[in-house]
Amino acid sequence: MRTTNVCHVRIAHIAPVIHPVPPATYGGTERVIADLATEQVAAGHEVAVFAPADSMLAGVKQIGTYHSLTWHKARHDDVPPGVPAELEACQLRDVLTRGSEFDVLHLHGSAHASAAAEQLGIPAFRTIHWRADELDHREHFRAFPGERVIAISESQARSVPAGSLAGVVHHGIPADRYRQGSGSGSYLAFLGRMTDQKRPDRAIELARLAGRDLQLAGPVDPGNPDYFDRVVAPSLGERIRHVGSIDDQGKQAFLGEAAALVFPIDWPEPFGLVMIEAMACGTPVIGWRQGSVTEVVDEGVTGIVVDSVEEAAARVGEVITLNRSTIRARFEERFSAGRMAEQTLALYREACSSRSSRLSSARSPSP
Amino acid sequence: MRTTNVCHVRIAHIAPVIHPVPPATYGGTERVIADLATEQVAAGHEVAVFAPADSMLAGVKQIGTYHSLTWHKARHDDVPPGVPAELEACQLRDVLTRGSEFDVLHLHGSAHASAAAEQLGIPAFRTIHWRADELDHREHFRAFPGERVIAISESQARSVPAGSLAGVVHHGIPADRYRQGSGSGSYLAFLGRMTDQKRPDRAIELARLAGRDLQLAGPVDPGNPDYFDRVVAPSLGERIRHVGSIDDQGKQAFLGEAAALVFPIDWPEPFGLVMIEAMACGTPVIGWRQGSVTEVVDEGVTGIVVDSVEEAAARVGEVITLNRSTIRARFEERFSAGRMAEQTLALYREACSSRSSRLSSARSPSP
Repeated sequence: MRTTNVCHVRIAHIAPVIHPVPPATYGGTERVIADLATEQVAAGHEVAVFAPADSMLAGVKQIGTYHSLTWHKARHDDVPPGVPAELEACQLRDVLTRGSEFDVLHLHGSAHASAAAEQLGIPAFRTIHWRADELDHREHFRAFPGERVIAISESQARSVPAGSLAGVVHHGIPADRYRQGSGSGSYLAFLGRMTDQKRPDRAIELARLAGRDLQLAGPVDPGNPDYFDRVVAPSLGERIRHVGSIDDQGKQAFLGEAAALVFPIDWPEPFGLVMIEAMACGTPVIGWRQGSVTEVVDEGVTGIVVDSVEEAAARVGEVITLNRSTIRARFEERFSAGRMAEQTLALYREACSSRSSRLSSARSPSP
Repeated sequence: MRTTNVCHVRIAHIAPVIHPVPPATYGGTERVIADLATEQVAAGHEVAVFAPADSMLAGVKQIGTYHSLTWHKARHDDVPPGVPAELEACQLRDVLTRGSEFDVLHLHGSAHASAAAEQLGIPAFRTIHWRADELDHREHFRAFPGERVIAISESQARSVPAGSLAGVVHHGIPADRYRQGSGSGSYLAFLGRMTDQKRPDRAIELARLAGRDLQLAGPVDPGNPDYFDRVVAPSLGERIRHVGSIDDQGKQAFLGEAAALVFPIDWPEPFGLVMIEAMACGTPVIGWRQGSVTEVVDEGVTGIVVDSVEEAAARVGEVITLNRSTIRARFEERFSAGRMAEQTLALYREACSSRSSRLSSARSPSP
């Protein structure tokens, strides 16, 4: 029989099959998993990821012989829509056969893994890397009431039934990924997919009203390729520029030299990683009052929260004079990966302490 | 300990979560499952379907408390794309907890069920209700080599590795679903989704070249709504008509009164149910040489197989004079649901006879 040690926890993250962990470029979910797992290893725990074989994370055991969807797309001209389900089926087999090697299963991807975790009788946590207020998650909460949800914002938590909610843990990023920038570029920055959820059009309107330069970074949305051509492209010129997708290094320059980040979302954003990336660069945020924004932005310290383009335009002068060192310090206090890992562990420990009793009813004893 | 009785088999079909079994209107896969299960019950076997709760099939145990995607779409304005995965997760739990009540699991839907079946160590068969030659299925065959594929045509079977192939069983339909029609409408009939795989444009061109009336039935493709407007609508008029989607009763009149069915597909059709529905109505088929067509159509008896619109136009006079009673008789010989069930059972029995040995290594004995 194994014993449960609350100091040393055997943790398995079950990742999506879309990108490797960490992702090569785009992939916010996989990035969070990588940062969380890395901090958990640093804290002395045994950590594995059920994740595509093209994943690679120092100190973390990778389980899975299939490759990510991204990997397949780079190698095959035609990747039919059934491929992700096949990769998930391989992952599901891995979880069913090896999940019992762990004290905690932390689910980040496909809903199917919940059935496997339940079957194994191991404490299962889920982070929902998306809005949680729609029919799919309502069905999930009803179907798997024993699964404990770690909400990524109070805003997201409001959609999680009390009985399913383990707690709220804001995302974090390693303190050394970005450093405080100068803001000397004096442009407004927008970073995100070119979609009507992220509303680059509002950033464009704000730049015009405020008489400021604007730089837009981020990919054209594959689900809505017309949006860019219709809404963004006609406004591009000397003062409003689109710089395409950027990687971490690109972000350091792009965010660090910006006067402020514009985050003009039009959906219940569950967290919004780019806000804390900006703060890590000392760059203030102009956020629209939706989803997690009021929790992440400290009004008047790390940015401002507005309700309209007009309000944002009227307050641009105020926001760009916020102290960049104070913003960076507040980032370190509130949004480090270490803090994220610590809070997550505290939620695991609660469940681990009651593990033995659950296990004995769900599984036969090992020899 | 259970015993394996080769005369009485406990069969569970694992259906897709999209439509109920049988489907209300559209849903070829669910229709085949319903017909197969019904014949298996008639043959004295114990049959269950892991299927949505809105399924209803006399004599067949339905397992599942979730509802089909179709059911949700009828009740909710907005059904997010994550819903099918949630329904599949519920089904997966059912399979994991109750799958061991059966001698055979016959999988028709999501790939994830393969991992559950493997975990249970029960003989698993899969019918692929789609082309099987693409990356997703190649990955599946490699990942689950122990799963036995019942191909629905020799054409489809050519994409299945020899070690995975259980055999070929053509689809069938109950002999009494349709009766021989008169063909007195004297129009050519096209029945299928309005897509570039099904090529209604070829049927239109054929009707023009041959100077015949054409009636098109079938839904606009939700994945390609422009196709109808662009390709079909401009040709509609006195002699070329679109009658929309039709149900079984509608099919009896539509196919039974047609001079011939045009089946001008442009993809490797794995079976093509509508061909045998036409034959059941005594209606000859003009099929394009692709996928299963040469297996399903008996050249010069139940229809003709062509390579071009020109060839089809030149041979319309020949095909519409084929004897309708002979066509109906050939349908009864080759494509009854009873024959489908019998051949499927024969494949199960092979596996069941070697079941006990497999089980003993994969599962601990019951008390």
